[in-house]
Amino acid sequence: MMMGDDVENGNLGPYLDRPRTFPNMCSKPYTPLIFRILRGINVRVLVILLFLGFGYVFYIGASTSPIIVFVFSVCIVSFLLSIYLTKWVLSKDEGPPEMAQISEAIRDGAEGFFKTQYGTISKMALLLALVILSIYLFRNTTPQQESSGLGRATSACITVAAFLLGALCSGVAGYVGMWVSVRANVRVSSAARRSAREALLIAVRAGGFSALVVVGMAVIGIAILYATFYVWLGVHSPGSMKVTDLPLLLVGYGFGASFVALFAQLGGGIYTKAADVGADLVGKVEQGIPEDDPRNPAVIADLVGDNVGDCAARGADLFESIAAEIISAMILGGTMAQRCKIEDPSGFILFPLVVHSFDLVVSSIGILSIRGTRDSNVKVPLEDPMTILQKGYSVTIILAVLTFFGSTRWLLYTEQAPSAWLNFSLCGLVGIITAYVFVWITKYYTDYKHEPVRTLALSSSTGHGTNIIAGVSLGLESTALPVLVISVSIISAFWLGHTSGLVDKTGSPTGGLFGTAVATMGMLSTAAYILTMDMFGPIADNAGGIVEMSQQPDSVREITDVLDAVGNTTKATTKGFAIGSAALASFLLFSAYMDEVSSFAREPFKQVDIAIPEVFIGGLLGSMLIFLFSAWACAAVGRTAQEVVKEVRRQFIERPGIMDYKEKPDYGRCVAIVASASLREMIKPGALAIVSPIVVGFLFRVLGHYTGHPLLGAKVVAALLMFATVSGILMALFLNTAGGAWDNAKKFIETGALGGKGSESHKAAVTGDTVGDPFKDTAGPSLHVLIKMLATITLVMAPVFL
Amino acid sequence: MMMGDDVENGNLGPYLDRPRTFPNMCSKPYTPLIFRILRGINVRVLVILLFLGFGYVFYIGASTSPIIVFVFSVCIVSFLLSIYLTKWVLSKDEGPPEMAQISEAIRDGAEGFFKTQYGTISKMALLLALVILSIYLFRNTTPQQESSGLGRATSACITVAAFLLGALCSGVAGYVGMWVSVRANVRVSSAARRSAREALLIAVRAGGFSALVVVGMAVIGIAILYATFYVWLGVHSPGSMKVTDLPLLLVGYGFGASFVALFAQLGGGIYTKAADVGADLVGKVEQGIPEDDPRNPAVIADLVGDNVGDCAARGADLFESIAAEIISAMILGGTMAQRCKIEDPSGFILFPLVVHSFDLVVSSIGILSIRGTRDSNVKVPLEDPMTILQKGYSVTIILAVLTFFGSTRWLLYTEQAPSAWLNFSLCGLVGIITAYVFVWITKYYTDYKHEPVRTLALSSSTGHGTNIIAGVSLGLESTALPVLVISVSIISAFWLGHTSGLVDKTGSPTGGLFGTAVATMGMLSTAAYILTMDMFGPIADNAGGIVEMSQQPDSVREITDVLDAVGNTTKATTKGFAIGSAALASFLLFSAYMDEVSSFAREPFKQVDIAIPEVFIGGLLGSMLIFLFSAWACAAVGRTAQEVVKEVRRQFIERPGIMDYKEKPDYGRCVAIVASASLREMIKPGALAIVSPIVVGFLFRVLGHYTGHPLLGAKVVAALLMFATVSGILMALFLNTAGGAWDNAKKFIETGALGGKGSESHKAAVTGDTVGDPFKDTAGPSLHVLIKMLATITLVMAPVFL
Repeated sequence: MMMGDDVENGNLGPYLDRPRTFPNMCSKPYTPLIFRILRGINVRVLVILLFLGFGYVFYIGASTSPIIVFVFSVCIVSFLLSIYLTKWVLSKDEGPPEMAQISEAIRDGAEGFFKTQYGTISKMALLLALVILSIYLFRNTTPQQESSGLGRATSACITVAAFLLGALCSGVAGYVGMWVSVRANVRVSSAARRSAREALLIAVRAGGFSALVVVGMAVIGIAILYATFYVWLGVHSPGSMKVTDLPLLLVGYGFGASFVALFAQLGGGIYTKAADVGADLVGKVEQGIPEDDPRNPAVIADLVGDNVGDCAARGADLFESIAAEIISAMILGGTMAQRCKIEDPSGFILFPLVVHSFDLVVSSIGILSIRGTRDSNVKVPLEDPMTILQKGYSVTIILAVLTFFGSTRWLLYTEQAPSAWLNFSLCGLVGIITAYVFVWITKYYTDYKHEPVRTLALSSSTGHGTNIIAGVSLGLESTALPVLVISVSIISAFWLGHTSGLVDKTGSPTGGLFGTAVATMGMLSTAAYILTMDMFGPIADNAGGIVEMSQQPDSVREITDVLDAVGNTTKATTKGFAIGSAALASFLLFSAYMDEVSSFAREPFKQVDIAIPEVFIGGLLGSMLIFLFSAWACAAVGRTAQEVVKEVRRQFIERPGIMDYKEKPDYGRCVAIVASASLREMIKPGALAIVSPIVVGFLFRVLGHYTGHPLLGAKVVAALLMFATVSGILMALFLNTAGGAWDNAKKFIETGALGGKGSESHKAAVTGDTVGDPFKDTAGPSLHVLIKMLATITLVMAPVFL
Repeated sequence: MMMGDDVENGNLGPYLDRPRTFPNMCSKPYTPLIFRILRGINVRVLVILLFLGFGYVFYIGASTSPIIVFVFSVCIVSFLLSIYLTKWVLSKDEGPPEMAQISEAIRDGAEGFFKTQYGTISKMALLLALVILSIYLFRNTTPQQESSGLGRATSACITVAAFLLGALCSGVAGYVGMWVSVRANVRVSSAARRSAREALLIAVRAGGFSALVVVGMAVIGIAILYATFYVWLGVHSPGSMKVTDLPLLLVGYGFGASFVALFAQLGGGIYTKAADVGADLVGKVEQGIPEDDPRNPAVIADLVGDNVGDCAARGADLFESIAAEIISAMILGGTMAQRCKIEDPSGFILFPLVVHSFDLVVSSIGILSIRGTRDSNVKVPLEDPMTILQKGYSVTIILAVLTFFGSTRWLLYTEQAPSAWLNFSLCGLVGIITAYVFVWITKYYTDYKHEPVRTLALSSSTGHGTNIIAGVSLGLESTALPVLVISVSIISAFWLGHTSGLVDKTGSPTGGLFGTAVATMGMLSTAAYILTMDMFGPIADNAGGIVEMSQQPDSVREITDVLDAVGNTTKATTKGFAIGSAALASFLLFSAYMDEVSSFAREPFKQVDIAIPEVFIGGLLGSMLIFLFSAWACAAVGRTAQEVVKEVRRQFIERPGIMDYKEKPDYGRCVAIVASASLREMIKPGALAIVSPIVVGFLFRVLGHYTGHPLLGAKVVAALLMFATVSGILMALFLNTAGGAWDNAKKFIETGALGGKGSESHKAAVTGDTVGDPFKDTAGPSLHVLIKMLATITLVMAPVFL
């Protein structure tokens, strides 16, 4: 379908005579240390260890609460299901040797980058763990901690351990996402030669595997930590810590997860888009060869990028979303239960874990509801894959609503307010509807079936400049509806919670914030299915690349093209979902931060008054942080892409045989350049995000100390956090939507509209697409993570500001 | 110097043989009604009326305070000086008939647009006046008003009268700016044939004329209102209104000014950039003819745009800045004086008027310090015009510092705190330094002598896409330093004011906010000179256009090119200045708003607590407003530019003789298209800005009423205002800097770097420049006005939220 370009360039030999030059750079496959140790152990020992582990888990679970036992069981069942899914995927064939070769090159590149990247990240995490340790050794203890005899050293160890466990799990979540995608991609390509349905099924199940692992790990990690602390600190016994204070000890886990996710997303995002932009600028624009053409020296780097950028990073991102949201909801549930003097508060505290356990169940059913046709070997015409995925989503969402009502009745029923559970169910419904509307809005602004993208495409016909202006305005405009939706859902969930009948000792209603928390949980109650759809995208994209590179017939390409297009849509819509949940989760974490500061400062911290100049400046700095972070993320892609452009141009000049398939391009060099550049470039924005709230909080704490404002540092950081959240949401919406719209405007023109491929309009649209790449896949998703990371870092670092 | 393009296109006949086709579309010159009435009156009657007017003014001034008399005198002297300047400019010749013809066409276009635009604006203003009237007739009165016997009807009339006067003066400020620029442009072109120095001098003095009129009118308008109310309400007599409450009656003036400025800037900004982008896209990019080439049908529209967009709109914008800043500082001064029980508070209240009177004096000296060389008829080599302008600025700024110290000693000395005046002088110094640093930062990011623009230019060499990515990142990054500077200056000015020794009856320091106000005044203490430099830009730009269109020899073009380049720099740097002062002024207006709400609600309104969900949502909506407004402003330019592109393409196709100078392009149609489109397009964003704070405030007022939160509406609007201010500052900085940097990156390449004109890098840079046009000249400056308009509208509309 892109042959026209080749003919123009006079490079086309007879199709079958093309020498197939493929990389031969496979090295020993890389496996992280922890997996290697596991593999090295004798099977029997492993089984015994596993049983011991399960035994421990269930023991502490049983000592804590039957709810925890339920959560454990569900998680373990879903791990077993995920093992079944991965076995099923791996049982598929890898296709002809040329496919397997390409796939191996991709796997090597991805695993190599993962190794170096996570090596760097883990060093930084260890350093940060030391910083946290030293801060906590000198921090004040809260009255609660003192009354329970929790010393400084214990508290420091707990936080650091939680931080490291969160970081480790987040890393594993990223690795799992990438591990399955580099194995599934070639199997999807191979299956596409036989049946479209089978190809779809492999991609969905591979995505489902990592989704179940990611969500399950987030849930079980928090559950284990909670149960361990519960047993260890003897929460039940009198005079010791109260169960409602327990969730505050978990914040380290959330921070660890978001810390790793931030760098994973930054590094991966820079990698994938620098390779993509660099490959396109020289390959598509200058040389006129199709995307994913084997002659392009940057093509393997581009395909590797899909795995490290989209799969690994998105895995870590969603892991962190879920972890942050669970922990903040647990904190708020605990605070509320304490204020309302509810006899058994564990229902309110453990509610989020149960919601996500049901998430695992209903999403599994949704994933399994997508089945192969009976004769998978016969080529049947493919039903629109989007419809298939949407059917599964409908199944999931209906079940999610039902189980949500069930779990609120089970856990949130209290005799003090008999109808409160019903209000909270409605909060959950608000969240589910919000998620749905968000997905719809994103689609409206980024799908070329609708007005905005068509207008954008039309503006390409008057040149590059008008295309960019129109795309920027489209992106800026697209922030309006989501903000209105978020506003309505926060207010209505707050109001539903407020009127739930739960009152504190003075008789004033207290359920408002918890209502917002429940809405957030509602929004995330189908997270595993959403993540499956999200993971589907890069796998299908990669499969298309492998098919293109291994020169398969057009019929195969058509199948992967359709899957790829659907993947683009699901990727775009899940971004809308991610930003919506990030907005709600940050709002919760912010409330949790205020609770935390109150408890450390031993005085109420109820207000963040932006009429105080210093607090206003905190807000100004917070918004500025978002702009600067986005700038650095985009600039990193631009700079790295320029390096790729130079390298690719150099290879085309020095090896003129590449264009005639007579010489092999040096794929490895491009991979190495992108890998080292993205590792270098991720440090600056990442460090900015971590250092600035700490520095600002500390400086204003000192200023407050000298000017007689006791809580100034904490207040300024609170304003920084709120303004950064608001600006971050808007900026992320802008970047994601503009990027998605440009991408699809280009695709719309490629369908033949406005002159089709090769026309001036198409060239302008390609420029827009290039600009949109770092917007939608580097800066935008990094902002989702940044928002939540800021919220967790302020929670953990609160002692610095006091 | 742009001949190369023509040769390539094969269109170049022998230079002197070109038939000179120029527009012949002059109609009766348009003069607004008020000027026509004035002209219709017999000269003697006019003189008598003038004397009566002066008499009245001095009578009320003398009944009020000697300070007011001083202010009146300075303003009248500077009006006389401005009459001298305009006489001097008009005494210059208009050059050969072809120049005069072009100039007349520009004048006609500009005056025609002005007439229709201000016709629309005045209708909207009258409508809004009715709305304000009806609101104020039903509003509650403040305790102060009741005690002084000020009824609802009187208060309503006062506000509406102030609003209409503000709107009228703002309109006149815009008209004056445009009036002089459409007359000076041709005189500068003509003078450029003789002497570079003379051309520079005419542009400076024409700019100086309108600067003096604009600043003088803002000052005298407020002074007259103040004195009239003072006398009318009998402030001195016991039992009547206190002098410290008087400034609150002036807010209508500020709102009227910002209302007109918003629409003037939007309409003018859309006009100028739609014409520019449209002309460039077809002329420069598609046909390869130089800028301002007479063959381009959109060239007259482009030149008209400079006048209505840059001169008229910027005049209204700065008028509004100064008015808003004076009024808010007067309110804060009054509040503080009252709290500290200062015996004669008039010094604190009238301080801003005196500062701006001195501004008129020192800026006049600065303007007049730029003199012609002795032999103006001999062609002497031109000293760098930037150096000349900077010398004048240095003179102004030194004098400003001295007079600032003088005026603080004169007016802010009080026996309660003998050293307070010194602290406040230092606040002023902080403001002056802030202005200087802002200008420097803007220069650093937009001048191609420095790193950022060079990197941007370099990124053009890898294509359109990388150029846009680099420009966007540059713009986003450039927000960081100004925010840090603003933060430091707000905190240090606040701290200086806080420690000034002024204390309220409980002994707590109260001077902090007034310190920030004084810093803002310091920043604006050279406003008239800054405005002169700003006005210089479009006049020089227009002169260059006339020289190009009338086919003058290269030596003349070189002179106007140099002036034009300097004008671009001054335009960019004054934007930095404008945004800095907008940030500070909004912060003041926000405090004034809180004072106002307290006084209406009869309960203290001291906190805007963003931890309340509704307030947080107000903030979210405020930031969203900025994004949406910018989107609509950019999209308006994009859409209008596309109409221009189609019209220009049509003319080139239907009249093939245009390219050979055989047929005359239809300039008038382009002018008409741009004019009607920009009038249509300015309504949507403008209405959004005005309606949304009112609607949000009213909705949350109702919500608060039903949920038992008394001040909810006012609080939500406060958050909306603060978040909008912060996002607006950042967005404006981003848009202005990115636009300026793209413009200069293109200019840098045009100097021959990276392949020079016509290279692929240049094409990419032109795309960047096109994208930057609506950023820096439509959305960016409109945001400056929007920020202040939001602050004044909330002040005036406060009764709606309570």
